[in-house]
Amino acid sequence: MDPYMKVALDEALYGLRKKEGGPFGAVIVKDGEIIARGHNQVISSHDPTAHAEIVAIRAASSLLQRFDLSDCILYTTCEPCPMCFGAIHWAKIPLVIYGATRTDASEIGFDDNLIYEFLAGRATDDQLTLKQSDRDACLQVFKEYMADQTRVHY
Amino acid sequence: MDPYMKVALDEALYGLRKKEGGPFGAVIVKDGEIIARGHNQVISSHDPTAHAEIVAIRAASSLLQRFDLSDCILYTTCEPCPMCFGAIHWAKIPLVIYGATRTDASEIGFDDNLIYEFLAGRATDDQLTLKQSDRDACLQVFKEYMADQTRVHY
Repeated sequence: MDPYMKVALDEALYGLRKKEGGPFGAVIVKDGEIIARGHNQVISSHDPTAHAEIVAIRAASSLLQRFDLSDCILYTTCEPCPMCFGAIHWAKIPLVIYGATRTDASEIGFDDNLIYEFLAGRATDDQLTLKQSDRDACLQVFKEYMADQTRVHY
Repeated sequence: MDPYMKVALDEALYGLRKKEGGPFGAVIVKDGEIIARGHNQVISSHDPTAHAEIVAIRAASSLLQRFDLSDCILYTTCEPCPMCFGAIHWAKIPLVIYGATRTDASEIGFDDNLIYEFLAGRATDDQLTLKQSDRDACLQVFKEYMADQTRVHY
């Protein structure tokens, strides 16, 4: 099998056997070298965002001291959930290699597919209500941002 | 305006003026009290996941020492991007109050809407390629997870 995926799988197995979270692992590769690895730590770290991909992205960004990982490849043992997909996009990672699918994840009890369907407008999320308030006040901050000629965009 | 949104806006303004990241802020409220606040720190922390909502969720989870925030409300100055939406779902937050919309965010140069459209299958993400590899090996770890009768699900 792919040697980078093998390391991501080792991460998944480690986390699973230590009961740190779901059975997922990820590594980030730059110039052929693994620079960061992660496994799901939602349970052990009490952090709902501690998916394998997020853990690996945060570690790689911390190591490189930049949020832009456009020269990196992410290997993950499962298709990223929408949270992780968003993080991959924001990190500008150009290539993701994944193992199991979002449907495989749903079959072992993880909501990935439901979140995808909700975001696509094809399902309702009974768990969550979204309401809008004070849009005009919030837009004022956007205006101040746009008026700042020295702003750093990302 | 809503007093909790006012604090979220103060966070957004603080981050904007300190140039820590995009003009976004969030707070988490439990039993009528603000227990965590956050603003976008993508630039200052070199962390592509450091959106206001993620910063606030991680702070609240760390404070409460649990990933389950189902007794909390999130106030955010802008409709959550898919990454933050996913985090909100995983944290089981039942109510989100937001100010500006994903379209407002796009208008000041943030990709929220593009990511939504891509996840819905209505747009292509020219920045990212996804490929599958070694699904069978990855499914073995899922099987081990399901066979573990003492597993903690989340």
